[in-house]
Amino acid sequence: MIIDLIAAVEFLKNNDDFLILTHAHPDGDTLGCGLALCEALNSLGKKAVVRCGDSVPSKYAYMGRVCTEDVECENIIAVDVADAKLLGKAFEERFGGRVKLCIDHHGSNRLYAEKTLLDPTAAAACEIILELIRALGAEETKTIADCIFTGLSTDTGCFRYSNVTPRTLRMAADMIEKGAEHSKINTIMFETKTRTYVALERLALESIKMYLDGRCAFITITQEMFNASGSDESEVDAIAAIPRQIEGVQVGVTMREKPDGTFKVSMRSHEGVDVSSICAMMGGGGHPRAAGCTVNGSAETARELVVSYITKYLNF
Amino acid sequence: MIIDLIAAVEFLKNNDDFLILTHAHPDGDTLGCGLALCEALNSLGKKAVVRCGDSVPSKYAYMGRVCTEDVECENIIAVDVADAKLLGKAFEERFGGRVKLCIDHHGSNRLYAEKTLLDPTAAAACEIILELIRALGAEETKTIADCIFTGLSTDTGCFRYSNVTPRTLRMAADMIEKGAEHSKINTIMFETKTRTYVALERLALESIKMYLDGRCAFITITQEMFNASGSDESEVDAIAAIPRQIEGVQVGVTMREKPDGTFKVSMRSHEGVDVSSICAMMGGGGHPRAAGCTVNGSAETARELVVSYITKYLNF
Repeated sequence: MIIDLIAAVEFLKNNDDFLILTHAHPDGDTLGCGLALCEALNSLGKKAVVRCGDSVPSKYAYMGRVCTEDVECENIIAVDVADAKLLGKAFEERFGGRVKLCIDHHGSNRLYAEKTLLDPTAAAACEIILELIRALGAEETKTIADCIFTGLSTDTGCFRYSNVTPRTLRMAADMIEKGAEHSKINTIMFETKTRTYVALERLALESIKMYLDGRCAFITITQEMFNASGSDESEVDAIAAIPRQIEGVQVGVTMREKPDGTFKVSMRSHEGVDVSSICAMMGGGGHPRAAGCTVNGSAETARELVVSYITKYLNF
Repeated sequence: MIIDLIAAVEFLKNNDDFLILTHAHPDGDTLGCGLALCEALNSLGKKAVVRCGDSVPSKYAYMGRVCTEDVECENIIAVDVADAKLLGKAFEERFGGRVKLCIDHHGSNRLYAEKTLLDPTAAAACEIILELIRALGAEETKTIADCIFTGLSTDTGCFRYSNVTPRTLRMAADMIEKGAEHSKINTIMFETKTRTYVALERLALESIKMYLDGRCAFITITQEMFNASGSDESEVDAIAAIPRQIEGVQVGVTMREKPDGTFKVSMRSHEGVDVSSICAMMGGGGHPRAAGCTVNGSAETARELVVSYITKYLNF
């Protein structure tokens, strides 16, 4: 059932002892949501902990503590989790069917929770959490400010993407006034590259191939390149943004080889090109500007296949 | 003479026929200032044109027209120009001593103008221009919104740098509401790389050398690399940000070979390391987090020299 802010506040006010779940492969938004909401509930005298189905990268440590002990309780809240599957396999099995309240900004939310507070106009789920915290009347502490700012910033590419609204920017301004260390946070999130990432990026740039008179740029990352750079799949997301950035490119593709030899394709486009429909033709899916699919074969035949579908789409 | 906003408004209201000058090597902030102020003055029935001592890159065309005809008039305004030298040689000679009003946010402003409206707390000079436009009572049109947003965004690395304040973000929010095409602007300014830049970046990453147990990263760009990539010095600024981004690096150095065989050094640091004092030891200067100098010799001896000064500073 979709509920509104007032009903969500009522649920939080009328209950105690909450288990807040983030999605697996946690990012700044889901952690910011969980830890800010937890701090607000604690400050109102309520018991609450945050848990995550995966380990949390140390760069997020400044936002607070994610509980690693085995905790069980009735009032399960999921934040920024569009689908119970995204809790991770173990957490999905254990908690997936018992989420009482889901707070999310994905239009694609599967409505798996008993109650869902959903705002697809929010650039980050943290926008909804801040509104909740305000409606709860909890103090906006420095930790909450750091958490909310992190969500706003990381889910918008540091306020760069088209999902940014005036509300996003005004909330970020408010959080700076409440003590969010915006410069430190942005440096950690956007200005820090590991040495293995830099090594992988170099190999990725060497692999660039252009197609369709420069309208399509292609990066191919092989298992050999992961080995040579010491990097792994977790660092490919930032590279997937590169091909689309090249002047004149309408479709940017990054193809990474999986350990089983198949290729995972990440496709990015500018306005006017719907890559979700291109990927759908190959059995994948996603959003109009960012989609994916999996293809088989050697790097060369896989590339040829993907380019043929892009050609078909662009020439239609 | 330093003046306040009210005095600047009076100057603009009591005069007509303005020549607005941007700095040479124009960027989004100086052009945003000039074109927004020009549109506001025009809308109040006043004559005004914007001129620049250099040609204006075509990516800024959406902000409006910079006058390329030879225009002469009495009321000369300089925007985002900290020093008359920055007008460019020809414009400095012709207009440098006759600037009536300078509107700027550089604490280092040389106060070369008759009157200077200065706010060093402004992340972008466009913040001051927007306050001026509001005080003038001019309508905040879509063009003005695009101009001001561009200045705010480009002078803050898309709201990433430490100079961002709540005012910056709130003004950006207001400009989006006035029609600024934030997503389009950010794509042009931050998500577009030329093919020659990508080729140069690849060579630059190949050139990375680490020193001092990874506390110093060094990129060297030779004339040969400019030739091989088809790129030139104008594209080095974005590369100069890379060495500092590598995890663990305290001082990032990018050294580019000039046509005369000398090397221009760009140094960047994180908090706690004052690269302006390192560069000063080599006859250069700049800001604590971003400074530069020039060194002679082969690439190898130049690198050794620079590293020796960095070592001296870090071990002090």
